[in-house]
Amino acid sequence: MLVKDSAYLCEQIRQKKSFLCVGLDPDLEKLPNHYLNGKQPFLEFCKDIIEVTHHLAVAYKINIAFFEALGPSGWEQLEQLVNIIPNECLLIADAKRADIGNTSKKYAEYYFDRLQVDAVTLHPYMGVDSLEPFLSYHNKWSVVLALTSNPGSADFELKELRTGELLFESVLQTFVKIKQSNQIMFVVGATHPEYLTKIRKICPDHFLLIPGIGSQGGDLHQVIQAGRNHNEGLLINVSRSIIYPELKKSFKDDVFQAAQNFVTEMSRYF
Amino acid sequence: MLVKDSAYLCEQIRQKKSFLCVGLDPDLEKLPNHYLNGKQPFLEFCKDIIEVTHHLAVAYKINIAFFEALGPSGWEQLEQLVNIIPNECLLIADAKRADIGNTSKKYAEYYFDRLQVDAVTLHPYMGVDSLEPFLSYHNKWSVVLALTSNPGSADFELKELRTGELLFESVLQTFVKIKQSNQIMFVVGATHPEYLTKIRKICPDHFLLIPGIGSQGGDLHQVIQAGRNHNEGLLINVSRSIIYPELKKSFKDDVFQAAQNFVTEMSRYF
Repeated sequence: MLVKDSAYLCEQIRQKKSFLCVGLDPDLEKLPNHYLNGKQPFLEFCKDIIEVTHHLAVAYKINIAFFEALGPSGWEQLEQLVNIIPNECLLIADAKRADIGNTSKKYAEYYFDRLQVDAVTLHPYMGVDSLEPFLSYHNKWSVVLALTSNPGSADFELKELRTGELLFESVLQTFVKIKQSNQIMFVVGATHPEYLTKIRKICPDHFLLIPGIGSQGGDLHQVIQAGRNHNEGLLINVSRSIIYPELKKSFKDDVFQAAQNFVTEMSRYF
Repeated sequence: MLVKDSAYLCEQIRQKKSFLCVGLDPDLEKLPNHYLNGKQPFLEFCKDIIEVTHHLAVAYKINIAFFEALGPSGWEQLEQLVNIIPNECLLIADAKRADIGNTSKKYAEYYFDRLQVDAVTLHPYMGVDSLEPFLSYHNKWSVVLALTSNPGSADFELKELRTGELLFESVLQTFVKIKQSNQIMFVVGATHPEYLTKIRKICPDHFLLIPGIGSQGGDLHQVIQAGRNHNEGLLINVSRSIIYPELKKSFKDDVFQAAQNFVTEMSRYF
């Protein structure tokens, strides 16, 4: 089994001159018409995206909600999709799970044993023990929400604690200190570039998964300047701006071009 | 459509003299052998539990992780299971979801439109806007994690903010104030009875979903004494102690007896 640790990711990023994580959020309301006639529209849609982006992307992030919304047929498509993600790329299940131990164990078994994804996104609210079942997989990544890209991040994540830290900083501090810390990535929204320097002081060595570039308005330059580390340390997710491109040529050409544009920007930093 | 609001729940609780929510956590490793030969072991197992407990329980809480762990067949069983929960009972999907708006919308559509459950459990970490898509269903419950029953609740939920509140109190305060506040329930673990009085000061009118009775060690008397309100206001979840009873007679008899024992205790308070 290929172990996709920090060193591996760093090497991939440098080879491809790309931090790109392509977010797969298939949505029946947005899919080009020609996918809607098939039996497995999400699978076919994602397959085409992967075909034209896999040499540009270092990671794929599958948004589980969009598959879950379809019921059993969504899960069937998901279980086939994970098999066509190129093995060289990191595969992230964006599931945002977490529960008490015996329940989290079931989620961890599904994502890591059955789907065999490399990483799962997780809510930290319930504390470290709620993520232990994920952390017990030593060759897998637990991607912990720290500072998310939505305006609601102000409600709790940015609350100041008595100790002076903000809540998301306490989340970072806590997971940086656990013994499986080298299996942790953090989600930090591109919409908060002002915090990236501070974040890098708390976790200089960790990989950050950065959503919020593109449709959500985050700035690529600021993110790379403030978030990159000695290991490269960034996976920059783009979903809607790549998978639902403005129609110019064919869907696949447009997806390719959108992804290429992001990677061209990124490659300037290498 | 039967609207299961606070008044309805209050009436059910008084009629049945029961706060009981039966937690459906089917686990292949724990299921009695005779279920394992069937094609839909989880469905058959839950069906038998419902048959012998529906007159005792005011609610059922389906632990989604256990179904998700099976892959598509788990979801197929889940989609049949929701149809056999008696309509008089509140049906809670214990999914612990939450994501940015366009993604939460997909989860909300699945649970409320397709499965037609009455309530979904949700992580508050990402803030109010991450739960808006659930809150936009005015006849449905959003069950927000406040103070959970696991030891890890100390890591963040019990952190003190600069303002003097604990984080979970800030979660309560925040969701008590939103305009859809009457659609909110809070999860408060029975393992923290010392906080219930304080919690009732912040949310005197809200329903609380209380896990942690039984296997996790919470005390029923303390919970009812400190947590009950003018509306009854409590759904007390028991999972393992009812659905995996000590084997004495037949499985169904034992499940019935375990549930009956809890409800006998509860009925003393009416």
